[in-house]
Amino acid sequence: MNYRFSDTIESFKSSAVREILKLTQGRSIISLAGGLPNEQYFPTEAVKEAFARVFEQGPQVLQYGLTEGYTPLRERISQHLARKGIQAGVDQMLLTTGSQQAIDLLTRVYIDPGDVILVERPTYLAAIQVFQSRKARIVSVECDADGMNLEDLERKIRQYAPKLVYVIPTFSNPSGKAWSLERRQGTLSICKRNNVLILEDDPYGELRFGGENGETFPSLFSLDEGADGSAVLYTSTFSKIVAPALRTGWIVGDKEVIMHMTRAKQAADLHSSSMDQQALYQLMAHFDLNAHIDLIRREYEARMRQMISLLQAKNWEGVKWIEPKGGMFVWVEMPQHIDTQELLKLAVEEEVAFVPGISFYADEPQKNTMRLNFTHTSADDMVLAFDRLGRALERMEQALAK
Amino acid sequence: MNYRFSDTIESFKSSAVREILKLTQGRSIISLAGGLPNEQYFPTEAVKEAFARVFEQGPQVLQYGLTEGYTPLRERISQHLARKGIQAGVDQMLLTTGSQQAIDLLTRVYIDPGDVILVERPTYLAAIQVFQSRKARIVSVECDADGMNLEDLERKIRQYAPKLVYVIPTFSNPSGKAWSLERRQGTLSICKRNNVLILEDDPYGELRFGGENGETFPSLFSLDEGADGSAVLYTSTFSKIVAPALRTGWIVGDKEVIMHMTRAKQAADLHSSSMDQQALYQLMAHFDLNAHIDLIRREYEARMRQMISLLQAKNWEGVKWIEPKGGMFVWVEMPQHIDTQELLKLAVEEEVAFVPGISFYADEPQKNTMRLNFTHTSADDMVLAFDRLGRALERMEQALAK
Repeated sequence: MNYRFSDTIESFKSSAVREILKLTQGRSIISLAGGLPNEQYFPTEAVKEAFARVFEQGPQVLQYGLTEGYTPLRERISQHLARKGIQAGVDQMLLTTGSQQAIDLLTRVYIDPGDVILVERPTYLAAIQVFQSRKARIVSVECDADGMNLEDLERKIRQYAPKLVYVIPTFSNPSGKAWSLERRQGTLSICKRNNVLILEDDPYGELRFGGENGETFPSLFSLDEGADGSAVLYTSTFSKIVAPALRTGWIVGDKEVIMHMTRAKQAADLHSSSMDQQALYQLMAHFDLNAHIDLIRREYEARMRQMISLLQAKNWEGVKWIEPKGGMFVWVEMPQHIDTQELLKLAVEEEVAFVPGISFYADEPQKNTMRLNFTHTSADDMVLAFDRLGRALERMEQALAK
Repeated sequence: MNYRFSDTIESFKSSAVREILKLTQGRSIISLAGGLPNEQYFPTEAVKEAFARVFEQGPQVLQYGLTEGYTPLRERISQHLARKGIQAGVDQMLLTTGSQQAIDLLTRVYIDPGDVILVERPTYLAAIQVFQSRKARIVSVECDADGMNLEDLERKIRQYAPKLVYVIPTFSNPSGKAWSLERRQGTLSICKRNNVLILEDDPYGELRFGGENGETFPSLFSLDEGADGSAVLYTSTFSKIVAPALRTGWIVGDKEVIMHMTRAKQAADLHSSSMDQQALYQLMAHFDLNAHIDLIRREYEARMRQMISLLQAKNWEGVKWIEPKGGMFVWVEMPQHIDTQELLKLAVEEEVAFVPGISFYADEPQKNTMRLNFTHTSADDMVLAFDRLGRALERMEQALAK
């Protein structure tokens, strides 16, 4: 049999970075490369009890469910979001297999091949893949520590007439940054004026540092005037605040958009696991999720502080970073002459791994950048990881000096 | 905001049938329309225990999993399939969110817009939707009680140069039929000779009637020469033999095809619920699934026999059916002048529902057909349902006689 694959498989090609990272598997490498939440803070007992409660309802819990998702869970999420200023009812919400599926389904119902999508520079790798598989044209907008450059956004909207702008404004993957209020308002108003839809991806928004007095960041969605007719679709997930294995995300927005996505989901997989959805409902009904989120925040902040302290202590020449106000990542800029893909090869030899920044650019990658994850490495390993990274950097500088 | 949806939403339009069936919700209607397995035979206690066992492994069970799916479950499925002559290793298998997602992912990696897909006449509604959303051209092949008409298959392969043939050869949805061995071999050899890939959808194959001495039907996949290089991709699911809420299906076939599908799945949703996958592994390790399948077979066969007896007893003029050898459906052909969409409107008034055959045709629907489900209605209700159906039919004949 001579298989005749579709054009789409081109967009799913394995990257050079992924090939290098494969080398880390099964070795005693300390990885700052992943994007994993820390198992130590999974509410395992509470999730276990939640599943047991589901079974108390009888065999019908195992029957087919609604494509939209388990209604009582949608109600709970709606209440949870309302506390963050996000007003969306159950018919303005679709439950998905992680927020990744929300990106995919919106792309299916909103993007035709050749349509332009604007993204941040840098942005989330797996969103780029979805857009590419749809044969969209992806164009990066310049960004700084405060978010998207509004002038560049306006210019690119004029130049490319995009249909969609995809953003992760709060504790972004990979850059860890949080947009200022001014950039949030500016982006929303520019997009509304130009009839460009915004997909706001917010998996990390709850992981805010600084405790009670920490800075808060309103979602773009909450700055618009209600779900119906909104220029913003907002997606988030339980993966970072409860646990990823439950694969439950959600997207909220205009009723009609949600309806079209629901129909697309029906063709894609009928519905996501309703066991997980029912368990999450029981969890939200019987467990203090907000207190749990506060715990994760404190623990992740402590880990972030250790990473920043190590960066400061190492004091590598020309190395820059922005201290994140939440999330799971520190974005590091190395001196101009350091290609982090090359550095990674040496790092893997020294038994430490990270993700080279090149993976996160839709176009014109800035090759001297890297993403470091701080949530999944113990304090002792973090110290070792930075020693190893230092040795890799030293070897690279020596090689370049020759 | 003026939303600008993609062309794809056209393929997800709600059908007239769906609109009529919506009227049945929340009413005391007896529905023979659904495709639901019977909750009465869900192994609820065993599934509950399986979830409890998963949690005994510690918090890492809640972490991100592999896109391919939980490896120990793939091993178990591989062993289970081997007993049916289906030889596929863990790297020739992808776990999906129901077999519906397997259809979708294969379509993504194998079909480009405009490609032709051949299907049975009639075929599974939700597969048509997936193919349409990919802008494939769908062409029906004539079928009889033994399966696809091989001459028509060859003719249409010559005429349309299709890339894919989609079939449900064993206890089909909607027609309930099982292909003869000759048609299985013939279809496989024609497709191999013409380099046309076969997607064999087999959600019902385990629901075989007739007990120990019942007729067995080898899968097309098992008739080919091993997974790698095979002309057949084979998909099935736990939805009908364990429970649908767990949303766990699988597809097996050539390593390269599976690899491309895995990459497409990574973009689509990273992975399916690994809670469900881990629970199914525990279930298969500690529960006699084969004995459970035998139980379902016996119970469904008894229900099928009741439905066939009622059809015989009613003895409606010109009504034909084939007694199914397995599965969940009886396909009924009414006299030529009965449009079952019109009949459904009267049936709903009489408080009984079914699915008009028109939903299951990619082209030139045979309007006098209907699909009746026998797995989800009690014996008492089944009697009532046929009385009501009889009244609807009588009213229709009277109206037509005027």
